[in-house]
Parts: sequence; structure tokens; C-alpha cells
Amino acid sequence: MCNGRSGFSFSGDSLNSRTHSVGFVEAQHAHFDEPLVLRCGAVLPAYDLVYETYGTLNAAKSNAILVCHALSGHHHLAGYYLEQPDDIGWWDNIIGPGKPLDTDRFFIVGVNNLGGCHGSTGPSSINPATGKPWGADFPLVAVNDWVHAQARLADRLGIDSWAAVVGGSLGGMQALRWAITCPERVRHSVVIAAAPKLSAQNIAFNDVARQAILTDPDFHGGHYYEHDVRPVRGLRLARMIGHITYLSDDQMGEKFGRVMRHDSFRYGYGIEFEIESYLRYQGDKFAGYFDANTYLLMTRALDYFDPARECNGDLHVTLARTRAAFLVISFLTDWRFSPARSKEIVAGLLANRRDVSYAELDLRWGHDSFLMEDPHYHAVLRTYLQRIKL
Amino acid sequence: MCNGRSGFSFSGDSLNSRTHSVGFVEAQHAHFDEPLVLRCGAVLPAYDLVYETYGTLNAAKSNAILVCHALSGHHHLAGYYLEQPDDIGWWDNIIGPGKPLDTDRFFIVGVNNLGGCHGSTGPSSINPATGKPWGADFPLVAVNDWVHAQARLADRLGIDSWAAVVGGSLGGMQALRWAITCPERVRHSVVIAAAPKLSAQNIAFNDVARQAILTDPDFHGGHYYEHDVRPVRGLRLARMIGHITYLSDDQMGEKFGRVMRHDSFRYGYGIEFEIESYLRYQGDKFAGYFDANTYLLMTRALDYFDPARECNGDLHVTLARTRAAFLVISFLTDWRFSPARSKEIVAGLLANRRDVSYAELDLRWGHDSFLMEDPHYHAVLRTYLQRIKL
Repeated sequence: MCNGRSGFSFSGDSLNSRTHSVGFVEAQHAHFDEPLVLRCGAVLPAYDLVYETYGTLNAAKSNAILVCHALSGHHHLAGYYLEQPDDIGWWDNIIGPGKPLDTDRFFIVGVNNLGGCHGSTGPSSINPATGKPWGADFPLVAVNDWVHAQARLADRLGIDSWAAVVGGSLGGMQALRWAITCPERVRHSVVIAAAPKLSAQNIAFNDVARQAILTDPDFHGGHYYEHDVRPVRGLRLARMIGHITYLSDDQMGEKFGRVMRHDSFRYGYGIEFEIESYLRYQGDKFAGYFDANTYLLMTRALDYFDPARECNGDLHVTLARTRAAFLVISFLTDWRFSPARSKEIVAGLLANRRDVSYAELDLRWGHDSFLMEDPHYHAVLRTYLQRIKL
Repeated sequence: MCNGRSGFSFSGDSLNSRTHSVGFVEAQHAHFDEPLVLRCGAVLPAYDLVYETYGTLNAAKSNAILVCHALSGHHHLAGYYLEQPDDIGWWDNIIGPGKPLDTDRFFIVGVNNLGGCHGSTGPSSINPATGKPWGADFPLVAVNDWVHAQARLADRLGIDSWAAVVGGSLGGMQALRWAITCPERVRHSVVIAAAPKLSAQNIAFNDVARQAILTDPDFHGGHYYEHDVRPVRGLRLARMIGHITYLSDDQMGEKFGRVMRHDSFRYGYGIEFEIESYLRYQGDKFAGYFDANTYLLMTRALDYFDPARECNGDLHVTLARTRAAFLVISFLTDWRFSPARSKEIVAGLLANRRDVSYAELDLRWGHDSFLMEDPHYHAVLRTYLQRIKL
């Protein structure tokens, strides 16, 4: 749900070090002139996607893996930019030579989703009809729209079928949706820390986050670009709320507990506890660069995601459309999308006699575990992906 | 945590009906001229407390029960006002003739805490030093300060010792603190849905709620009264966040699930799901009457609460000071203050060989369960209180 953060640092002496990195990378752009009909009924006349690739596409074009990003993620999965060597990809610990998503074997593609704010067409892009940023007029994009947009990128790259589509959280929902929407184009679907649809509580957290943005006086109905302001207050609150749901209660307790900022209380509303410092820092950092309209759009895509709805709410019927083999991974400390939610997917796949592997892992970082470096987690991914026939 | 709401209605044909009500009640005021030294170091030169009583104090003055309120509660526990017959006390289902807190037997006292916004001296009261509302200058009040202020009210009423001090959530913390601070004045302490201190996650939720208020442009550093505005946006968000933590995930799922507002999605940020409607309604309602400075103060009192801190963090040592018998109640679906938190209190009391009864109840309303009418829950309370010798 929360890519691209540095709240928890990864160990420097591991495979993350530069020697196992994909190294210097460059983002690429693809322009699409063919109109895209979106789930909401709107039509996007043309759009750009920004993406990165790592490794080499083999002659048979059978070794491509698509990695889908979560709420605040983007296309920069691994490696670093020459001009910004500290801007390391958000899944660099998993993607690289010899890593679980092994770039010596696979050709890996990361793409910034439509509606994003990292280079692909989104609310902060110029609306050709007005010459101004789309802002609130940018149409709501659904998970299935991302699949269609990504499929066109696959066409462009000459990839008929993905060896695997992989993602965590909202990225996992895309991996699942790919297998339903384009069964013939996905050989393996790796669905991590996801759910077949949001619960009422999930939607509730999203709604409070959105209300924080929508009621920020600097939001200006989504057209803040024209007012030369940004709804940073609302975006900061949204991120703080999100962050609480990304971590486990236990991990927060272990890491912060009731550790105080000063020797004694100051008796005020400044920072008294380290957890407050952490949350406010994360909120400030995120509000400094992320686009509020994209945040709204991404959380709404989460809310709407419910592929079973097309089959009268019957997930088993929906999953009958899939042809891929599946790896489903959940984390015991994830209370946002608990293992029970992953098991709904597994049960639906098993009912359809699909080839499905399921791992329930005891990592301690809550929902954020999907981003983390852990030997067991990485071994599960590595082992599964190594067995894929190219 | 969340008294005085009507999100869940109680059944009308139960003991709640007017025939078992304490009937028409009137709030009373007590003025205290003796300065009160607060935990934060500030001194409140004088203050008022507003309170209500139900039942009759016996000649021995041995049948008095103090009911402490939670974050957004007040002194109006039961019955109704002649001029506002729909304003029924927030714990009317528990307090009344023949009810678990039986007014045929007990004399029950409810008091609005210092710092509140229902008549007792608080941030919206006039600061005698300036002739203006205290606003942000009102000193932070700790749970122990409430105990001291309530003790003076007990003196005024001629009550040397309470038959019981009872409370849920922040009210339960007061019941616990009473037994530690004034062991000779509490014969029974009933601690419901509470914790010996907040976890990092608890503090985190409070901090986001406070940040919503503090960063609302209408907050004006806490002196919004003078600007003739109220930080309703922030207060609304704070309440929405709080509400998510008051309900259980399961109960939210049962009651709202993914029920849609319309037959089809509107693809926008209006209300799409009923859970959004519920949350926004609760937020709006609360923001319409509650004082933001009180909300800040009450959440900070929660954060600071940690009686074991006085004994180097050793709760067992702290609880050695108590003399009361205890009833501790927790609810399985309460993820804000889970049963594990109540068991910390129970373990500390048992280590000191105190008389302690513990009930872990399977009510489905999460943290809010403590407010609800449930035969098992009420029977536990009734049975325990009936055995109290007067």
C-alpha cells in the first residue's frame, strides 16, 4: 500500500548492496493515441505511461514479469538514477541479479499506473481539452483499467504473455485482475498481501483519508494547481492514517512503545512520544511530493475493486475465468488485509482446481511486510519463480 | 470512548423504556474556590463541576457509586430533562430502578470532568485572568486531576467512600486511578474496556485526530472562540477516525459491509458506500456540538495515563497501593483496548492478592460494547454490584 518509503531501513550488507543492484536505470515513456474506455464510462483520448525495465527480454519473449505497484508506488522498482544515486527503486531488495525476482533470468517491467503522479498521465497532467491540469476532472480509473493500459504496454514491448504478474497490496489486486481479465496472457499470478475486495473497515479508513483531503481549504475542488497551492494538510493526515494501518500493533509497540521525546512531559500538543514524531515525519515527507488527486483516485480504485461483482458477488465463478498458476502470500501481522482475506482468494482458486501455492508468513511488519527483506519471504518468492518454465 | 451517540439504537421494549427510567433529572452545579494543583504543574484557582445524581443517598452514606465518563461523555448518565425529553442519559440502559446500576439501592453520581464542554470548567469557560475563554491556555488535565476534583465533589456530598467507582474506556482508567490514588475511599472498582496505559498504536490514532484539529485553519491556535468560528473540519475528521476504532471490523462488516448507496456507482468522491454515510454523519453530528479543545485535552489525558510510571513502570508495585475489590471486564471484539490489556491489570491485582473478578465477554460491538445493552454483560454487572455490602 505504501511503496517508496524509508520508514524502515534495510540492512546494508545484504543483497541490497550496489554489487547486486541492477545498477543505473532510466525511465522510458510510451505514448498511446488509441482512446481508452474506462470503467467509469469516461474515455481517455490519449495517454502516456512511464515505465522501467530490468534484465533482458529473451528471444521467445517468454521471460517477462510485470510488477504492479501499490497506492503510492511507481515504476521505479530497482536500481538508481545516474543523477540521483540515492533514489533507489522501492523493491530493490527483491529485484536484481541473483535476487528473488532475478534479472539474470527475467525481464522485469515496472509501470506507473494511469492516474499516478510519477510521469504517467494523471490528474496533474495537462488536459488537452482545456490546456490546464486535469485536476478533479481526471476520470476515476479502476484496477481493470490499469490492466488494459498495461496490456497495451505489453503489446508495445512485444510481450504476448507474462511469465508472471506480481504485486503486493493494490499491486496484488492488479495481479489477480490480470489473471481474470486476460487469462491467456498471464502464466503465473503472484498475489501478495491483498484481498478480493475491501472490507467496510478498509473503506472507512480510505474515506477518512479522502475527507481530510477533500475538506482541506487548499484543495479547491481538486483544481489547486491553478491556485498555486497544494492541500498538504489533508494529504499529510491521509498519510498518517494510512501509516497506522500499514504497521502492526506489535511492531509499533516494539519500535516505539511509549518512548518519550524528552526526559519529562512538556504537557502540550507538541511531540511527547516518538510515535508522534515518526507519524508526523512520514506525513510531512509524503505531503511534500505526492499529488492529492492521485491519492484520492488510488484509494477509490481500492474501494471499487471487487471482481466478483461481475458474477453476482460469487468469487468462485469469477475465478473460473483464470488460467494462470497462483502464488498467494499473506502475513500474520497484517491487519489491513489479513490472511483470512488471502484465503478467500485461495479457496476460490481451489474450488476451480487451479494450481495455487499459499504461504502465510510470520513477518512482523504488518501490511508493510510485503516490502521487506526477510529470508523466508524471499525464499518463497525465489523458489516459486525459479520453477517457472521460460 | 464514545458516549452519547445514537449510532446503534437500543431495543425499545427492554428495561430502557420510560417505566424503568430514573425519569426527569436536573443537572446540579458545584463551585470550588480552593485552588487545584494539576499534574502539569499549573494551578486552577477555582472551578465548577456540573453533576447529576440518581437514587437516594442512605443515612450511612455507604451506597454511593461514582460513574466516570469517557472521552466525549458527560454527567448526564440516565433519565431525561423536562425541557428536552429526547436527551436521554448515555448510560440509561444500565442505570435506573431495577437495572444493573440499581437506583433503588444505590445513589449514583455522574460528573462532567474538568476540561469538559458540558458545563464543568473547561477551555470554553471564561478565564478570570483575561475575561475571555481559556481556549488553548486551559491547562492540560490528567486522569489523576479528575480523581482529585471528583474527590472534592464527594466531600461536598458527604461521601467518605464510594461503594464503587465505575467506568468504561477512559472512565475505566478513572476507576482504576481512584483505587490507586484514594485507596481508602473506594470499596469496589469496576474497570470496563480499559487499559493500564495506551499502546503506540492508541497514541498514534489520537495524534492523527489531534493533528486534524490543530492544523484546521479555523483552530486559530486554540483561540477560535474569539474568531467566532470552530474547527469543525478537524473535529469531524477526529471523530471519524475515532469511530473506526470504536467498532469491531466484524461488526462494521455485518452492519455495513460493502452496501452501496445507489444501485450503481457514481464514480466520484460522494457517498458510494453506506459506511461512508455513517462515518460522515457521525463526524458531522459530533463536530456540531463538541468543543475541539476539550477533544484535544481528553485525548492527551488518555496518552499520559500510565499510573505505573510513578513506580518505575512496574504496574504490580503501583497496584499494591489499592485496597478495593475489582471487577474487570473486557470485550473480545475490542481491538482498541483488547482483553490482553485488561489482563495486564488483572495480573497486577492478582500479584498483590487483591479480590478481583474478571469477565471477558463476547459482545460484537468492539470497544463500544461497554455502552451496549446485552443480557450477559448486564448480568455480570448486576450480580457483582448486588453483592456489595452497604
